[in-house]
Amino acid sequence: MDSLSPAARLAQQIEFIFEVDKLKEIFRQTINTQSRRPENDAEHSWHLCLCVIVLAEHANHPSLDVLHVLKMLIVHDLVEIDAGDTFAYDTAAMAGQHDREARAADRIFGLLPPDQALEFRALWDEFEEKQTPESKFATAVDRFQPMLLNCRTEGAAWNHHGITQDRVVARNRHIAEGCEELWRYAENMVQSAVDVGHLKPAP
Amino acid sequence: MDSLSPAARLAQQIEFIFEVDKLKEIFRQTINTQSRRPENDAEHSWHLCLCVIVLAEHANHPSLDVLHVLKMLIVHDLVEIDAGDTFAYDTAAMAGQHDREARAADRIFGLLPPDQALEFRALWDEFEEKQTPESKFATAVDRFQPMLLNCRTEGAAWNHHGITQDRVVARNRHIAEGCEELWRYAENMVQSAVDVGHLKPAP
Repeated sequence: MDSLSPAARLAQQIEFIFEVDKLKEIFRQTINTQSRRPENDAEHSWHLCLCVIVLAEHANHPSLDVLHVLKMLIVHDLVEIDAGDTFAYDTAAMAGQHDREARAADRIFGLLPPDQALEFRALWDEFEEKQTPESKFATAVDRFQPMLLNCRTEGAAWNHHGITQDRVVARNRHIAEGCEELWRYAENMVQSAVDVGHLKPAP
Repeated sequence: MDSLSPAARLAQQIEFIFEVDKLKEIFRQTINTQSRRPENDAEHSWHLCLCVIVLAEHANHPSLDVLHVLKMLIVHDLVEIDAGDTFAYDTAAMAGQHDREARAADRIFGLLPPDQALEFRALWDEFEEKQTPESKFATAVDRFQPMLLNCRTEGAAWNHHGITQDRVVARNRHIAEGCEELWRYAENMVQSAVDVGHLKPAP
């Protein structure tokens, strides 16, 4: 805790809550299944939290800290307010991604009182490093949810960008590090998408 | 747990995760601060989760179960997939609201394996009943966040519906039951909105 009064801390925290309202305007390549409009980062983050509380029983790690996973996912995309969304298959844009996002983390988490700025930055660093059971499971749902939406929109985002099965598998096989059961499901789902012609096989 | 295999449970859970993608298309009366478009329930739910992890230290209850608050907020609006959003100041529509939402809860949570259907229904019932420290704090942020967005959009939703200060205070004073510090902030914020002409005083 810093030396601010509770009222002064609260006022600073509410400015942060207002600032991150911008996450609702950061649009992804994934298409929502109903309206077929691009998904934004805020609704994506909610959908991942929902996935966690539904699917946590399948995690590889037997005693996952679910609260910690949720905290990571609630803040994991905030850096995109400044750095923008980087499409998972855009290798050119991915080159400078971490530097752009680290600068964004400095600014955005820096709006909070110092102790909370450190806590939230540590959550984002942990998510990026993908070494703990919690960050591996968070990554598993962050990779799986766009695949699910792609499969339920006839492969819309994959086909728009000419992505093939081999690239989908290479990008997403890390799901198994957090949740082997989910990766088995995902592999079958991707094969079905190929079988019905919604995803092109490897060239 | 039921007698389904892990793979069969997972398949059923993923159909639930797909079904609730519809939450992204349920629009509220509140206007987002950047694009000035109506907020949807999914991004609203994310914003509430963010509020919880930032503001939990201010809760009246000294040892709040933050994971439980988050779980409640992640699922609290799912019933609106069937029942629609009911505007907080529409007293006519609010009359049948609970019955409509309870039928929606039966259908939507019923898509999950039985043990999870019971768990999620209990979360929603607890949120509706507002008797526990966790549901009181969840309600506090659910009431506060739309007030904040209203104040930062020059009172857009309030003015669109002719809402006056007395109704805003009457509707939202329950914030104090979960978080007195937040209600003090909110009262001042509302008075400032009146002072600058973004919210009409009581007639």
